[in-house]
Parts: sequence; structure tokens; C-alpha cells
Amino acid sequence: MIDYNAPLRDMQFILSGLAGLDEISSLPGCEEATPDLAEAILEEAGKFAAGVLAPINRTGDQQGCRLEGERVIAPDGWQEAYAQFQSAGWVGLSLPPEFGGQGLPKLVSTPVWEMWFSANLAFAMLPQLNVGEAAAILLAGCDELKATFLPKLVSGEWGGTMNLTEPQAGSDLAATRTRAEAQADGTYRVFGQKIFISYGEHELTANIIHLVLARLPDAPAGVKGISMFVVPKYLVNPDGSPGARNDVRCISIEHKMGIHGSPTCTMSYGDNGGAAGYLVGERNRGLEYMFVMMNEARFGVGVQGVGLGERAYQHALAYARERVQGRNAVSGENGQTIVHHPDVKRMLLSMRARIMAARALLYTAAGWFDRAQHDPDAAAAEKCRRYVDLLMPVAKGWCTEIGNEVCDTAIQINGGMGFVEETGVAQYFRDARIMTIYEGTTGIQAIDLIGRKILREGGATLTELMAEMRETALRLSADEALSSLGAALLEDIALLERTLEWILANGRAHLDCVLSGAVPFLHLLGTVCGGWQMGRAALAAQARLVAGEGDAAYLGGIVDLSRFYFGHVTPHAAAWTRTVIRGGETVAGYDCAAL
Amino acid sequence: MIDYNAPLRDMQFILSGLAGLDEISSLPGCEEATPDLAEAILEEAGKFAAGVLAPINRTGDQQGCRLEGERVIAPDGWQEAYAQFQSAGWVGLSLPPEFGGQGLPKLVSTPVWEMWFSANLAFAMLPQLNVGEAAAILLAGCDELKATFLPKLVSGEWGGTMNLTEPQAGSDLAATRTRAEAQADGTYRVFGQKIFISYGEHELTANIIHLVLARLPDAPAGVKGISMFVVPKYLVNPDGSPGARNDVRCISIEHKMGIHGSPTCTMSYGDNGGAAGYLVGERNRGLEYMFVMMNEARFGVGVQGVGLGERAYQHALAYARERVQGRNAVSGENGQTIVHHPDVKRMLLSMRARIMAARALLYTAAGWFDRAQHDPDAAAAEKCRRYVDLLMPVAKGWCTEIGNEVCDTAIQINGGMGFVEETGVAQYFRDARIMTIYEGTTGIQAIDLIGRKILREGGATLTELMAEMRETALRLSADEALSSLGAALLEDIALLERTLEWILANGRAHLDCVLSGAVPFLHLLGTVCGGWQMGRAALAAQARLVAGEGDAAYLGGIVDLSRFYFGHVTPHAAAWTRTVIRGGETVAGYDCAAL
Repeated sequence: MIDYNAPLRDMQFILSGLAGLDEISSLPGCEEATPDLAEAILEEAGKFAAGVLAPINRTGDQQGCRLEGERVIAPDGWQEAYAQFQSAGWVGLSLPPEFGGQGLPKLVSTPVWEMWFSANLAFAMLPQLNVGEAAAILLAGCDELKATFLPKLVSGEWGGTMNLTEPQAGSDLAATRTRAEAQADGTYRVFGQKIFISYGEHELTANIIHLVLARLPDAPAGVKGISMFVVPKYLVNPDGSPGARNDVRCISIEHKMGIHGSPTCTMSYGDNGGAAGYLVGERNRGLEYMFVMMNEARFGVGVQGVGLGERAYQHALAYARERVQGRNAVSGENGQTIVHHPDVKRMLLSMRARIMAARALLYTAAGWFDRAQHDPDAAAAEKCRRYVDLLMPVAKGWCTEIGNEVCDTAIQINGGMGFVEETGVAQYFRDARIMTIYEGTTGIQAIDLIGRKILREGGATLTELMAEMRETALRLSADEALSSLGAALLEDIALLERTLEWILANGRAHLDCVLSGAVPFLHLLGTVCGGWQMGRAALAAQARLVAGEGDAAYLGGIVDLSRFYFGHVTPHAAAWTRTVIRGGETVAGYDCAAL
Repeated sequence: MIDYNAPLRDMQFILSGLAGLDEISSLPGCEEATPDLAEAILEEAGKFAAGVLAPINRTGDQQGCRLEGERVIAPDGWQEAYAQFQSAGWVGLSLPPEFGGQGLPKLVSTPVWEMWFSANLAFAMLPQLNVGEAAAILLAGCDELKATFLPKLVSGEWGGTMNLTEPQAGSDLAATRTRAEAQADGTYRVFGQKIFISYGEHELTANIIHLVLARLPDAPAGVKGISMFVVPKYLVNPDGSPGARNDVRCISIEHKMGIHGSPTCTMSYGDNGGAAGYLVGERNRGLEYMFVMMNEARFGVGVQGVGLGERAYQHALAYARERVQGRNAVSGENGQTIVHHPDVKRMLLSMRARIMAARALLYTAAGWFDRAQHDPDAAAAEKCRRYVDLLMPVAKGWCTEIGNEVCDTAIQINGGMGFVEETGVAQYFRDARIMTIYEGTTGIQAIDLIGRKILREGGATLTELMAEMRETALRLSADEALSSLGAALLEDIALLERTLEWILANGRAHLDCVLSGAVPFLHLLGTVCGGWQMGRAALAAQARLVAGEGDAAYLGGIVDLSRFYFGHVTPHAAAWTRTVIRGGETVAGYDCAAL
């Protein structure tokens, strides 16, 4: 069994070299997050991930969860691991100190979450739900809700869930049918069935606080008639302890291809008179709150992409360095480890380059989150908020697609052993496959990108972002050692610009053609943003090399990785451009009956 | 549970419109294979696949095989299904009549095999092994071996296996350690362990005839010292019936990500004095025989890619036509089935276009196999043999990569349901993942393509093939309705030509750079060959449309599918070209220690 090692060097390089940890930690409210503290936290998290979570990842896959009556039993070792995780205070890492959290910037918590996902995705989904639910209650909850639920969610003493999906309402939440009825005492009764509820039932925490989307009887049809409720598994006693069982239960769990350790539940609300619930914020604004949270939740899934990709990469690299097979095609030397075979090396580079590009993009975006919240310069904060909004579909859609690709390549490097479950890499591949689906499929991300993020504002933020990318390209071009990267990046930005122009010109009259190219456009934007980040990485590494700082072999490797990215990944930008511009018609014009 | 329907219309369109069934059936030795007979066989096979094999596919996945002592127990229903399969004479469909087969051309047997793979890949691997082993014995076996084993292998009364892999000898067969010792009576004793042996042990057939690669004591080192042996599970009595148990046994079976119904065995030979074996052909020529067979075996795996892809496509299409979700982004219409959503439609088209391109390439190649064997015009036969040799790595490598992609897209279309095992589509995705690995990984195919098939002959056959592609492009250009396809194909051929020139110019001095681009080149060649085939399909469909023959909606759909292929698939040809030419250095120049 190959262990997980937190990639602290890569993380630190991006945090300090690209994502501006120094500047973030000088923002008001972030002063505690010094680079030294960040380093200490990452080291500690790395130990916990490798020592506690990674070893039970396989167990979770093999045993899965089981439903016994209305109880869901977690795999062996999970209860103990969660107790350690909770008591170490990891749940509240980025949550507000006033409710018991540590209030660290997102830039610091993001690499920590990456480690949890690398080590044990199915496990990490549990505390991730707490963070999402806490964000919703912080955003819209009244003081009483906050006081009742936030301390326990922040500490991790209680768990959280997100109840959106119903059989007829997946990507389309307008079709939500779960209903809520107001009671005389200001509470509500909730009735209905929700599916695909992660950690909908378990005994890892003393209570489970469900966040549920439902309709009130007088609500308008569609998405504007959905309200958000908190429905605890156990009603909360006046002293704050869990009391009587609420009218909500798990009626089945799914048999899934992956993340077996995470129970995916069908939840039934109100079979015996109605589940007691508490309205979050105002009536009929539930989806609006959900969408604000969604940026954060989707960002988290993007980080899963990098996390699983990193784990799979480490596995494949270790195998490639140890497996002896064949002779060197060039030197004729026998008994080579396969890492030296050109195609295996290419595959490993394609994994590492994509992971680094996606990680750099996500950490940079994490920095934007923090600036949007803390930067005293209102214009700077606003710009960061717009960047986050624009790129969230890319952070989720593109980074999870990359996570899948990387896990797929890890199987390929392992050859026949990759297909055998004992090796472990098959689990990463299976686990990864949900990432491009939950929290909005890649298609949904791409439509959001085209519709809400580009067409609605005439491409303004993207144009602004491209200007920043161009600055990076010009800096690369100005450096003799990196000028070819600058030229390549400029070319890619021009492709992006041309595609944006076409989208803006056709968004009204030919929306069907434009939407047919939504996912290709998401790939284009992701690929170019990745190139931008790899260009920034090359600049940062080269600057340190010139200054004689740091490990020259490592920094040279970063520059070369950037070259690889421009040699193997960005060449497809032209293809995506062409597909968006010329391919839409071939979809829109196709007769569905001929499929 | 969604059923499988043999895509007879697509198959017939390719057989008659592109692969030249008429001409093949007029070749000497193929006269019986009239288009009418072919149609009847395909229909019958379609019924068998859908009625007998498809229904137990899921059972095979869920139950898998189990090892009880030295026995391997197949899933429920497999014994009965195999008995039906065997008694219907399906095993010997393409095998020589003198040993009981039906001797049908490969062009007719290929769509039949596609159906078996669609319906139940894990099951179909069993008879596929008979065909491979029969080919080996036909190629190199002495008359006695032929007489003893072929009738039973052709009828399917006995099963076959291929024993190549050992723990230290996967892609690198030079590392084979299994050894054989000559006996006074002309037989051999075989000793050693083989891994990853599909159907190495089971009770579906009365005997199992293992084909084993092993070394004789005096053999030269490396690949030139490997001999091929037949080692039956039960020794054969003088009357041809199975006799005493031979000294070979299954010591474990793998727990795999997919194809659970197919037992993957570790086989131990000679634990009790040596397994009796019979030399096939001459000493030390085993690998040479294996390579001749390999073309055929690899072709079969390519057909698996199309078969599994087709099954996944049918599943996704049925779901997309039935699943109601959201409103039409353009018309605003509510309650749309998702097939009408632009991105879902794009995904379905990308599946169908790739499957059709790969199928057309494989069936066309099947026709080349037949012509190579039967065409009385020696030059024509020789040309077909060269085409087969050149394109076999593409038929295997590219078509299986496509199979994986298509199964992946099927999950995506199913959304959350795709990740749930009950839906069935997850099985196709898991089953498919082995195809790019066994019978030589995509990397091995690509190296074979660059080395043996291109550099060794200075690109002669590929140049010849490109001339044929150009003819197709010019015919497209000459047709007003299809001229844009012609222009696109010409552009792609020019890219291919440019890449070939670069490979030939750098194959000696910069072999490491060239090999770093081997897989990108395989993708390039596959993509362009697929475009060539889709161009041919458009020509054939357009000709029928103009002549007023056939179903206009279907034929129009084929033309439009070709347009989609050129809008969404071939744009990546330029990217692969650039990666081969410029990206190799970024791999070759990378320091492995920095990975």
C-alpha cells in the first residue's frame, strides 16, 4: 500500500509565489494567518491526512456503509478518526471565531482541504458539509438559529447535510416538491422525499442538521418559490442538547461506483405528521441563498479534483519508479524502471502539469475569496469578487474534469495492476467519477459560465481577466529564458478573445449554437487559465532561480513543467475555439430523431 | 433495465456502403457470404445477444466468479448461456470449415463479435480466446496438434487461454521465466507461474487448452528464446476425450474493477513434476507466432471498444429520451426531455460520431483482412495486408480509447444516476477500463505504430494510405453539399503528412522526442482515419439520398453526423500535430527526478 505524502513543497510554492499569502495575511482580519502559521498548519494537516485519514480510505471503500433498520453504520475506524478530526479542531478551520472556529483565510484552509480529499474523499465530505451548512446559516439565519446550531456545526459535534435533489428535481430545482407548512409557533412541518443526500444518516456525530429546500403552500411556482429550512435529526432541548427524534429518516442508501465510505441516503421527511423545521432567512429566497453558498461548495469540489488527482499521481509515480520493465528505447539499456520510458514519463508529466495548473488556479481563486471579503480597498475587493464569480464554473468544472483524467492516467500507468482493486488506484478512479456530476455537472457549470457569467455582463469580467493574463504573457516574453511561453500564452489569449467575441455576437440570435459549445468553451477557458497560472509559476520559479534562492532542481522542474503544459495541454485551445465557433451548428442543426 | 438492440441499420450501412461486403463475398472462398446470408446471421446474432447474453451481463458483474479450492465457479446462468452459444455454432463462425467452423469472412464475423461484446464483454472473452488459440495452432501447429485440439476449440466444446504475462513480464515478454523441459517422448514439461490469465480456470467447457509461452533450457536470452506450448487442463485420451488432470492449476483469481464475470487467474504450472505440454511450431519462435496472432487479437479488442461504446450509447440515449428535466434554454419550453438540451445532445452526438467512425474503420479493416487472405490479385492482397499491419495499433489503441470516452460520457448523461450501480451504466464504464490495457496498452500500440509500422519502412504504407484519403477528400470537395467536409479532411491529411515528415526526419537523431509523441500521434492518426471514414460515410449516404434510395432521415443523419465529427473531433488533429512536433522535447528534456 503506497502512502500519501502531503505535497507541501508544491503547496508552499503556490501559496507564496502565486497566490500572495504574504499580502493576504496582511489584510485586516487575516493578521493571524502568517506564513509561519500557515506552514505549521499545513504540516500538521499533512501528518493527520497521511497518518489518520489515508489508512482508512481503503477500508471505507471495501466495507462501505450499511443500513440497519433506520441506522447507517460507517466503516470500521471512521468513528475514531472522526473523533480525532473533530477534537483537533479541523472542522472550524475557516469558520468564524465567534462561533468557535479559527477564522483562517480560505487561502490557508484550501490546501488543508486538498489534503483531506487526497487522503480520504468519502470521509472528508462529512466535515465539508458542516462548512457549507454553516455558511448558509451565517448568510441568512436569524440569531436564534445561529446560536442554536452554529457552535455545534463549527465544532463538528453535529453533522450537516444539503437536501436539494428529489427524483424529479436534479439539475432542475424548479421541480422541487418537498413542502413545508407553517405552525402557530413559528416553526414549520416539512414533508417529502430527498435523494442523493450525502451523510443523510450516520452515527459519527451526536446530531445531524439537515438543510432542506421545500415549498410553502402559497409559494410561487418555479425557482422563486423555494424556501430553506433547518431540520435537525434530534430536536434540540432548551439546554442545547439533542432531544426527541424528529420525523425524518433514512429509508435507503445507494450502491455506488465509488465513495463507498460516504453514505448516500434517500431521506423521508414527515411520514408521521411532519418533520419540525426552522426557516432560514426569508420565505421563497432559499434558492438564492443556495446559489450564494454554491460558489463555495463548487469551489470545494474543484479542490477535490486536485486532491484525488494528487493522490493518484503519487501512486502512479511511486509505481513507475519501482516497476522494472523493458529496455530503454533509445539507449537500449535493460532493466529500466518505467518512469524512464518516454510514454510513461509523458503520462506522469501530463498528470503533474494538470494538477499544478489546477491547484494554482484554485489557490489563486482562494486568495480572491479572501480579498473579496477582507480587502479594505473596495474596488480591489469588488474585482476579486467578480473574478471568483466568473471562474467558479471553471474551478469546479475544469478542475474536476482534470481530476478524472489524472485518475484515469494513473490506472494506465499501472497497467494490468491498475485494474486490480488490491492496487488501490482503481478506487481513486471510481471515487473521482462523481466529481464532475455532483454540485452541478460540467454541463451545468458551462451553461452557468456562458449565461450568467459571460452573456449577462457582456463579457466584461473576462475581458478584464484577459488583460491580466496578457500582462503575465508580456512578462514572460520579456524574459529571454521564458519568451516562448509568453508567445504561446499570447496566442492562447487571442484564441480566447476571438471565442468570446463570437459568443457575445451570437448569444442572442443563436443561443442554441452557443450553448452547444458551452462545455468546449469551459475547456478552453480552463486550459488558458491553466496556462496563465503555469506562466506565472514559471516566472516565480525563474525569479527565484535568478536570485539564487531555493532548490534549483525543484524550481527548474517548475519551469520545465510549464513548458510541458504549453507543449501538451494548451495546443488543444485552438481545437476548443474552433469547436465553439464552428461546431455549434452541427449540434443545433441535428435532428434528435436521428440519434 | 434497458435492453440492448443490435444496431443492425448502422452495421448494414457500413458493411455495404463502406466496407465492400459485395466485393468480399465475390472473392474465392467467400462466395457463401452473400449479403443476404450476412443479414440473416446478423439478425440471428442480434437476437441471441439481446435475448441470452445481455440479460446475464449484470448478474456476472454482481456475482463475479469465485474460487473454491482449485475450482472456479462462474456466475449464475453462464453455464446455460454458454451451452446455447456453443450449440448454436457461434464459436466457429470465422474458423475453417475443415475443423468444423463456418469459414465466414472477417467482415461478417466482426459485427457479430461487436454484438457479443456489447451484450456481455466478460462472457464473450471466453469464445474469443478459442478463436485466438485456434489461429495460433492453425498458423504453427503440426497436423497432430491440429487434429487433436482444433475440432474441440472450433466447436467450443473446449476452451482456450493465452498465457503470456508473468509478474516481472508484462509489456516486456523478454523477461519471461516460465520454463519447459523436453521429454524423451517428444512432449515437454512446463514449470512456472502466469498471471492475469483470462478464463484460466472454469467449468464452462469440458477441457481448457492453455497456450503458454516458456523458455527451453538452451534458449537464447530475450525475446528470441521463447517457445509456444499447448498445455491442456486434462490430458487427452487416445479417443480424444479428456483424461487425467494435468499438473496445472489456478491458485488465485483477481478482484478487478470490472469484467467480474470473466475469471482472471494466476496459473501455476508444474508444481508436481511438470505440466505436460506440446510444442507449437518450432522452438524459440513462440513470440513470432504470437505477434502474428496479435494483430487479430488486438483487432478484437478494438471491436470491444465499439461494442461497449454502443451499449453505453444506447443506455444514455434511452435515458436522455425519457428523463424530463428543466426547460429549453432557447424556447423556454418546460418539461423537456434532456435529449433536447444542447449539451446533452452534444454529448450524445459525440458518442455516436466516435462509435460510427471507429466502427467504420474496424469494418473496413476487417474487409482488408479478408482481401489480404482471399484476393486473387496478389498486389491488392498485399496492399491490404500492409494496411492491416499499419493500422492495427490504431484499431486497437484508438478504438479502445474511444470506447472508454464513450462509456465515460454515458455516465455523465445519466448524472447522479450514472454513479449508482443499479443503473447499469457504471458497469460499462468499469468493464471498459481494461480495454486500453490488455493485449498491449495504448502506449505499446503507439510505440509499435511509430517503430515497426512507420520508421521501419520510412512511412511508405502511411503515405499510400494518405493518397487514398486524399481521393476521398477530393470526392467530397467535388460534391457541393459535402465540400466543406472535403476541405476539412484535406486540412487534416496535410497535418498528418507534416507530422509524418517530422517523425521520419527525427526518428533516428531524436528518437526519445519522437517516442514522447507516440500516443499523441496515435490519436492524430486515429482521428484523421476516423474523419476519412466519416467522409466516406457522408459520400455513401449522400449518393443514396441523391438516388432516392433508403431512408432519407437516416441517411441525412449520417451526413450530419459526419459534419459533427468534423466540427468536434477533428479540430484536435492540429493539437496532436503540434504536440508531436513541439512537445516531445518538453518530455525528453525533463529531469525524471523533478517529477
